[in-house]
This record gives sequence, structure tokens and C-alpha cells, in this order.
Amino acid sequence: MAASNLPLDADRLWADVMALAELTDSARPYTRRSFSPLFLEGRALLAKRFAEAGLAVHIDTAGNLIGRLDGADPALGVIAVGSHSDTVPSGGRFDGIAGVATALEIVRSLRDQGERLDHSVEVIDFLAEEPSEYGLSCVGSRGMSGALEASMLNLSEPGGETLRDALSRVGGDPERLAEAKRSDVRAFLELHIEQGIVLESQSLDVGLVTSIVGIRRIEIVLDGAADHAGTTPMQLRQDALVAAANTVVSVRRIAEQLAGEAKDYFVATVGVLTVEPGAANVVPGHCRLVIDARTTDPALTARFVEAVERESAAHAAAARVQRSPLTTLSEGKPVACNPMLREALREGAHTLGLSETDLASGAGHDAAFMSRICKSAMVFVPCKGGKSHSPEEWSDREQIAAGAAVILQAVKALDRSLQKGKKD
Amino acid sequence: MAASNLPLDADRLWADVMALAELTDSARPYTRRSFSPLFLEGRALLAKRFAEAGLAVHIDTAGNLIGRLDGADPALGVIAVGSHSDTVPSGGRFDGIAGVATALEIVRSLRDQGERLDHSVEVIDFLAEEPSEYGLSCVGSRGMSGALEASMLNLSEPGGETLRDALSRVGGDPERLAEAKRSDVRAFLELHIEQGIVLESQSLDVGLVTSIVGIRRIEIVLDGAADHAGTTPMQLRQDALVAAANTVVSVRRIAEQLAGEAKDYFVATVGVLTVEPGAANVVPGHCRLVIDARTTDPALTARFVEAVERESAAHAAAARVQRSPLTTLSEGKPVACNPMLREALREGAHTLGLSETDLASGAGHDAAFMSRICKSAMVFVPCKGGKSHSPEEWSDREQIAAGAAVILQAVKALDRSLQKGKKD
Repeated sequence: MAASNLPLDADRLWADVMALAELTDSARPYTRRSFSPLFLEGRALLAKRFAEAGLAVHIDTAGNLIGRLDGADPALGVIAVGSHSDTVPSGGRFDGIAGVATALEIVRSLRDQGERLDHSVEVIDFLAEEPSEYGLSCVGSRGMSGALEASMLNLSEPGGETLRDALSRVGGDPERLAEAKRSDVRAFLELHIEQGIVLESQSLDVGLVTSIVGIRRIEIVLDGAADHAGTTPMQLRQDALVAAANTVVSVRRIAEQLAGEAKDYFVATVGVLTVEPGAANVVPGHCRLVIDARTTDPALTARFVEAVERESAAHAAAARVQRSPLTTLSEGKPVACNPMLREALREGAHTLGLSETDLASGAGHDAAFMSRICKSAMVFVPCKGGKSHSPEEWSDREQIAAGAAVILQAVKALDRSLQKGKKD
Repeated sequence: MAASNLPLDADRLWADVMALAELTDSARPYTRRSFSPLFLEGRALLAKRFAEAGLAVHIDTAGNLIGRLDGADPALGVIAVGSHSDTVPSGGRFDGIAGVATALEIVRSLRDQGERLDHSVEVIDFLAEEPSEYGLSCVGSRGMSGALEASMLNLSEPGGETLRDALSRVGGDPERLAEAKRSDVRAFLELHIEQGIVLESQSLDVGLVTSIVGIRRIEIVLDGAADHAGTTPMQLRQDALVAAANTVVSVRRIAEQLAGEAKDYFVATVGVLTVEPGAANVVPGHCRLVIDARTTDPALTARFVEAVERESAAHAAAARVQRSPLTTLSEGKPVACNPMLREALREGAHTLGLSETDLASGAGHDAAFMSRICKSAMVFVPCKGGKSHSPEEWSDREQIAAGAAVILQAVKALDRSLQKGKKD
């Protein structure tokens, strides 16, 4: 269907997405790292637009930016819609912010249409969904679902600032973190760019997410000796990078095996590898790598970790390097989306004449944490060439508006159906 | 022999070395990177001490800090002594500065002893001997020997500053670079910590360097696609780090083969590997690695490069990644030290009752460039455990003083023998 027939303003929604895209590290578009000055600039703009839309705006103790529209019967609780406004380094213009702008456009559309829901509606910009400089992702949705443990606040970025201090700096309150946990949210809906090619290749309007992969992040630290690259004979070296490079090669081979043999989804990546001291004439004395493993079947991750444990130990021994125990930085189980919400989304798509399909999410999302405290589901919109987390990331104005309209339909339907106490 | 019997002041020499060690990035001792504010602080201190020793101080157009003591017959030319005051990241307290402090102590000793030489004597702190952030080493000695090519000034550091601008910033003059090339230097002598374990393991006082390895630095750039680490199936990835890691493994294996089979010296190292964007949940889209290969036989480097060329191309193809052509960032041929100077040093050691041995240098030094314009030779002093380019780097006060005294004896002898027009 044409965007002009949708029950919301595609241009207004698009303008919000593009306005945030302007707030980027100009040296490496599109970068708006959580906790950075640019991130705070983006939030100031969002807060202004939330207020202009008639929302009551506040930041909760877990650092989430929330805009609230009270319902006719606030005792019914909240239907929440949202996503995040931070990006990876050199990321794209849609991952995260398209979902926040969608939530904002939904409340504006309700207002334009003179509709007042019985439930309160909240527009949420979750803090630091992407892996932050503090080594943790989904900081805000962890906080809102009670999964942000006190020990995590001791994590620190390379400059030494703790997550605790960073959280205070962006308006959260680490001393009152427990207050961020919610029990009044009845449903959470999130729009996100697909980050894959299923919708594009099948010319479909929206994807209705069946489940979200579980993600485990594992850190390996290798310590050798930072000797002179000219005067240290090959056989006397303790080269941390040689052990690290062999481990990267192992991770790739093991992941390919598991992905190839199993019917469930499995991928693993080494995205972070630091080399110290990092000079051409010094044998690397210290390396750190972070492995990201994702699956819809936790048994695959267990097999993966066992193989990486064994092979990396052998590589370290061969290079005469000390390997730390494998450290699990974070771990999330696969999460199934809520059937009642998925059905409301499907009906919304059908009402609007939009095509849809079920699909799994290979990416983690705030919705995975929100599912701990409420019914949660997601809508994917098409992603050009499957490119995401890169400057080329793209989704058309009409594609985002279509996904947003599906959620708007579902919100209106859920405002009624949630009152019937339906079982999911 | 005891330090107290040496013809110079071991404590005064040691105090200079320790004073410079204080000027370090406190977060990662001992770091005083060329062109940095700390480097300029170190140079200000050196310039002050040069002046206090009665030297006329200036910075030449290639950015070298020079202290000059005119000889009785300046037309005879210059005997130069020196080294460098910059360090690698997380380096040591001796590499470089011990040779500059030695040169300074030699002119102070000559003054204390009331000796005026016929030749002028220059104390030189060469600019940026270590690989700088601009991708080039031995910037100052290249300049003094006419080997700093105009194109090299276009190199830039990650922040974008060109070497040309950096050179101006530290007192050089890129527009008048040709004036830095010298034709009046008759001999150059350099003291340096061994950076190996030959002297320590044989309990010897000094090493007389026979030749300095040739060093080739090669850059390889790998470009893949910075896709989402969760949504990109293993078989569709273009992971630049997988190609880079396989290349690191190849470099190690090829280097071990060449080092094992040849009688000549060969080592190769990947000391720099950068990964972009460098986030846990993004497939690495861009990697850059720098290989450092060193030998006393250039034929070994040719074989090495051929094998790396072939294997890295195969790794890139397997990972569906673009590999740049191998870029030679710098290349130096092996350099033999001057026999006449080596003999003067040997006689100096014998006069002082110090034990010595011939040995090759696996590290590059400013002396290698100086040998293009004058007779050059080097003295090595013992290095505890062979550790260098690391905070543990150590040489005793008496060991440095002994090496300095050998050079002092040689300077005095050369002041006479160079006038006889001896052929080397």
C-alpha cells in the first residue's frame, strides 16, 4: 500500500530518523556511541520532541529516556513501544533510532486521530543497547527488567570511568537501580531494521519475529613478552598475537562446522582484537579478544565454548603465552516472542494490506530483556542488501512507516484485548 | 674495572638517563613518543644540559637536536656521538637515551679533563628513531644522511597530521630539508643497550657491532564488509580479521622456516594489527597489519616476501576479502660497521681493561643511516635478560659508564688518527 494511506505521517517519522543521523561523529558516520556527548545531544533532541508530542518526559534510574502518555485508566498499566538511540562505531542511520522514532510517531498519530487509550503508553529510548565501551550491552533494558546486576556497574571503559559513574552522568541513579524494574508494563513492542536479507529477497513488507537468539560474549586475554622484534630469535618469542591469531582461525572453523551441521541458527565472530604495545618493532606482549556467539539452541554454544577452550589453550602453549580462563562477559538465552502480541501484529498487517512473514532474529534486542517482565514482540522492516552496523545501512521511508503502522494497529488492538485477561 | 676508575662521571651520566625516564606517560611507563608533548619536554631538558656543558645548541632542518663543541681546527670536520630520546609505547629507560646521555657525558669529561680536540664534536639526539605514529622510523638520521625523501613527508598519523607539519612543529624545516644533509661528519659513534643476551650470558663488558640488520616494513590492508555479527550467516561473511589472522599465522611459520634453515640472521614480526570497526557485534570490515622483517642477507627477505604475498592472497580469497598489494613502508639494507672505528673502539676497551666481543645487531639504529655519509660504528652495553622495548629494560650504571668510556677513548684516538687520512 502507499505510505499516504497509512494511519500515520511517514514524513514526520522519517524526519526524526534523519535528524538523529545528523548527530554523528563526522570522521566516521554514523557513530553516536552511548554515554558520549553526541549521544546526550541526541537524547536532548528526543526529549524535546517527546515533550512537543505531549508526553511527560523523564529518565529512569537505569538511564532510560521515557516519554509517557497517561491512559484513561492508568491502573491497567502500560503498553510500551521503543528501541535505542545509540549506535556501534561506524554504524548506520536506522539501527535503534527507527524504533524510537516509530514509538514517538505512534503517540503523535493517536493524538492526531483524537484516540485516547485506556492503557498508558510509554515511548522508550533504552540506554546503551549496543555493546558499550564498558563491555556491556542492553544496559537500560537490563535495568528495566531487573537484570542489571550490581557487579556490572563496576565495569569500566578504557579511560577508567566505571559504568556506575557513567550511568550517573547520563541521568540515571545507580544507588536506586532497583526502582527501574517495572511491574506495570503489560506489553512491549519494538520496530527494528531486519539486518538481514529475508524481507528484501522475498519483497515482503514486515517480518514478525518468532524468537531472538541467545548471545554469549567471551573474553580471552593472552599475555606473552613484549620483546624487541629485531633481537629476539623466533624460537625464544612469547608472541601474544600469534596465539590470538590462531584462536581467531579456530573460532571461524568451529563456527562454520556448527552452523553447517545443525538445523538451529549458529554464528560466532571475533569483532574485537587489541594488540599491545602495537608498534612495528615490538613483539606483541598482550592481546585481548572478544568472541560473540549466537544461537537459537544453547547446546551449540556449549559445544562451541568447549572446542574454543581446548584449541586456544593449545595455541597459547605453542606460542609460550599465558592464556586467561575464558571469561563470560555476558550471556543471554534465546527468547521466544509472545504469541498474543505476534497475532496482534499479524492482524494489524492484514488490516493494512501489508505482507508479512515469521522470522528469527540473529541479533539481540532490548525486547529480549523486556520479555522477562512483560509480553514482548518485534516487527522487522526491510534492510537494503542486508547491510547493517555500517554506513550503508538503509531502509526506505515507506518501509519504516509500514512497520510503524503495523505496531500502531497492534497497540490499539491490545489496548482492548489486554483488558480481557486473555492467556497467551 | 670499577666505575670509579673510568675517565668519566658514571653518576652524572646515570642521572641524565634517570631524569629522562621520569618524563613518561604515567599510565604506561616508559613512553615518550616522538613528536609528543613529553618528547618535547625531554628535548627541552636535554637542550638545557647541552648548553650547561658548554655546547652550542640548535635543531637542524630534519629536526635533530644538536649540541656542538668547536674543535681547534674546525676545518677537519666533525666527530659525532649520539642516539635518540624517543621510545616505543611502553618501552624502557635506556633504549636511545643512554646513547644521547653518553655523548653528553663525553663532552663534559673532555672539558673536565681540559682536553680540546682538533675536530669539532657534536652530540646528537636524532628525531624519531623508533617507528613513529607517521609510519616511519629514523626520521632524523634519514634527514641527516639525505635519505628522507620528500614523499615521506606526506605520511600522516591517524589523526591526520602529516609528517611535514609534525616536523615543523618540533623545530625542523621541511622546506629546507636538503640543508640537513651533512658532508662534514668524519665519524659517528653510538652507544646502545644490546637488546639481546649475548653480553650478559658471557659476562662481557661491551659488544662491538659488526653489522646492523636490514629492515623491511611491509603493510597489508584487508577490506571486507562490516556486517552484523548476529544476522550474517558464516558462509556470507567477508571477515577482514579472518584473513588477517591467517596471514599472521603464515608470517610466523615462514619466518621460523627461514630462521631455521639459514646461517644468516632472520626474524619477522607482525607488531601492528588494527581491526575496524572493532565492536563485539560487528564482523571486522577492515584490518591493517604491519610486518617487520630483518636479516643480514637480503635474499632471505626476498624469499619471505614472495611466500607472504602468495599465502596472504590465498587467505584473502578464502575469506572473500580484498587484499591491497603489499606496500613497502620502509626498507634498509644490512650495513657493515666501519673497520677503522671498530678498531679504535677495541683499542679503547683494551686500554680500559674491559672485555669485548664482536656481534651483529638485530635492531636497526641511526648508525645505519649515518654510515651513508661517514664512518660509523656502535658499542653495545649489557641488557638484563635481553629484555628491551619493555618496562623491564635494564642496564647497570657501571655497564653504561664502561661503554661510554670506550667511546670516549675512541673519540680521542680518532681525533688523531682521522687526520692521518687513513683508508678504511
